[in-house]
Amino acid sequence: MTLHDPYDTSNIFARILRGELPCHKVYENDHALAFLDLFPQTPGHTLVIPKAEATNILDFPPDLFGPYMSAVQTVARAVHVGLGADGLSILQFNGTAGGQTVFHLHFHIIPRHAGVAMHGHGNAPMAVEADLKQQAALIVAAFQSG
Amino acid sequence: MTLHDPYDTSNIFARILRGELPCHKVYENDHALAFLDLFPQTPGHTLVIPKAEATNILDFPPDLFGPYMSAVQTVARAVHVGLGADGLSILQFNGTAGGQTVFHLHFHIIPRHAGVAMHGHGNAPMAVEADLKQQAALIVAAFQSG
Repeated sequence: MTLHDPYDTSNIFARILRGELPCHKVYENDHALAFLDLFPQTPGHTLVIPKAEATNILDFPPDLFGPYMSAVQTVARAVHVGLGADGLSILQFNGTAGGQTVFHLHFHIIPRHAGVAMHGHGNAPMAVEADLKQQAALIVAAFQSG
Repeated sequence: MTLHDPYDTSNIFARILRGELPCHKVYENDHALAFLDLFPQTPGHTLVIPKAEATNILDFPPDLFGPYMSAVQTVARAVHVGLGADGLSILQFNGTAGGQTVFHLHFHIIPRHAGVAMHGHGNAPMAVEADLKQQAALIVAAFQSG
């Protein structure tokens, strides 16, 4: 996919937004949905997607950046607290050449611990269901405590 | 630096904002400044920083995400056009464990070409001055053409 291909409503994040596919949801508001990545670069790797249709950062409606990025910040804080992370690596890929694999705009929030490397994007092993449930519960609890 | 250390006004991006240090500027408005990274992960690697004081994404004032991220989008578009990039990798690091080395919030916009790897963050060689001037000129021209 180039940076200029039109939005494809059959992408998997669009299907998650429509409720056609399940996800390990950790947060939702009027503008954004957050859920765990099935191929986490570290445990607790979370994706935050806007509800608006946008293929990548270039075609996102600028007037929606405020609420969308506020949601990214809110989720980042909960991932930090819930996973006890020392740091957060936030990644956002655009176009196949940029590393993007699902063509609905998304930010990756990757909790980091000092001295622990993360898997590369695209070569992380698939997560175990029980681990995802546990990590989602930790993040959700962090929202409730905050 | 942890995710909770207070903002240090002597960081190099604060000094660039105050005009105490030079930069290869490509864009500026009331809310943001963009300039080339001196250790580019690919040629044309650009940083976009907010004018507001924030150590990382967690302490940024939420009401300023709209104008700041609109500037990130505007700069991303110009980097894409100016460098003829096929894709864009956008990175944002928080805390030492998250990969952050300058403790003023910033987004990295890294132009990508199909099949060409990028240097890792922290192990890219320092850029040559003449190359930075040429790349800045290409990006500035892309704003003017857009």
